[in-house]
Amino acid sequence: MAKPQLQLALDHTNLESALQTVKILHPYIDIIESGTILCVSEGMKAVRELRALYPDHTLVADLKVADAGETLATEAFNAGADWMTVICAAPLATMAKAHEVAQARGGEIQIELFGNWTLDDARAWHQLGIKQAIYHRGRDAQASGQSWGKADLDLMKQLSDIGLELSITGGIVPEDLPLFRDITVRAFIVGRALAQAADPAAAANAFHSAIDALWGDQHA
Amino acid sequence: MAKPQLQLALDHTNLESALQTVKILHPYIDIIESGTILCVSEGMKAVRELRALYPDHTLVADLKVADAGETLATEAFNAGADWMTVICAAPLATMAKAHEVAQARGGEIQIELFGNWTLDDARAWHQLGIKQAIYHRGRDAQASGQSWGKADLDLMKQLSDIGLELSITGGIVPEDLPLFRDITVRAFIVGRALAQAADPAAAANAFHSAIDALWGDQHA
Repeated sequence: MAKPQLQLALDHTNLESALQTVKILHPYIDIIESGTILCVSEGMKAVRELRALYPDHTLVADLKVADAGETLATEAFNAGADWMTVICAAPLATMAKAHEVAQARGGEIQIELFGNWTLDDARAWHQLGIKQAIYHRGRDAQASGQSWGKADLDLMKQLSDIGLELSITGGIVPEDLPLFRDITVRAFIVGRALAQAADPAAAANAFHSAIDALWGDQHA
Repeated sequence: MAKPQLQLALDHTNLESALQTVKILHPYIDIIESGTILCVSEGMKAVRELRALYPDHTLVADLKVADAGETLATEAFNAGADWMTVICAAPLATMAKAHEVAQARGGEIQIELFGNWTLDDARAWHQLGIKQAIYHRGRDAQASGQSWGKADLDLMKQLSDIGLELSITGGIVPEDLPLFRDITVRAFIVGRALAQAADPAAAANAFHSAIDALWGDQHA
């Protein structure tokens, strides 16, 4: 298992402030995410500008696509995204179309896990050729007090066993990382804990230190 | 039950062509929808421009919100939307937050039904105060040959009985309308069948004629 990467989620409502954040943080992160809020506010212009400014980072368009997989994947990958998210509630046909466009562009689809879904669904996604999913403790769920629990961790392990790499998000702090030691983690996704840190570089490095301590010797 | 309205879904990948379509069709429709594709491509600029040009139409931002209900609802209603969609897979907390913002602005939330959901979920949405849902035969599902069936219609009837008004979409043609006679229909949502019609006004009027023939006498 490769070492998990660090993903910066840009959930700003305007592109200018998102660009200020990434300007400070880009040396300390592996993956830049144009978050749903940014994509909805600014459209694919956000992805195009991030691609132009940061050609070497992996770039995610977090669109949470629910339908029209082919059209939206074409928009996202044309704008320069490497990865695009599809919501787990989308019909399998939508995932198949999005995955087809992604493959043709050398990109990848990530299934965003929200609400009702089953391990059978996850197996069906994996059979389509989709390799990634995002395990999300939702912003509103967090605010209402839901935390990482054994049920979450067991489910993540089962998803790993199916063959899906997970990116994990939702108010993660470096102290949480040991919880995920047995999971195939592609990335930890962090938004406000980096963007709003008093010292953003130090906040990012705290994640990298925790990742190195837990996964570092697998990185040989 | 009021007479169903006609909603034009703008699923263009650029605002200019969307504005051309609505320029032709606006006298013949009740509701303008800035579709997910348009919102993703152009951001909230699309909703702002539609609001400025058509102040008297009901305006929908079809964002299919899955998280961050408060922020995205604020973006959508600030841009001038009257209604905003939330995906059924969103946590109840997201729906509650979005609904709160909508209520404060005199707007409404529509739950977009996709993938796995239950009638118990629908009762929970209704208990939050949400009055509308969108029953969607997905674009990709249509393309793979799924049609309106008895299972769809029975489910729509049960949603009506719970108290949810439905907007119905997915390749609808005027000949389909009698199928929905026993459902509480808020709107029929039509995209390409209007936008790409040889005679868009005639296509819209064919819907209105079918609506009047089926629901007209309830419009007194």
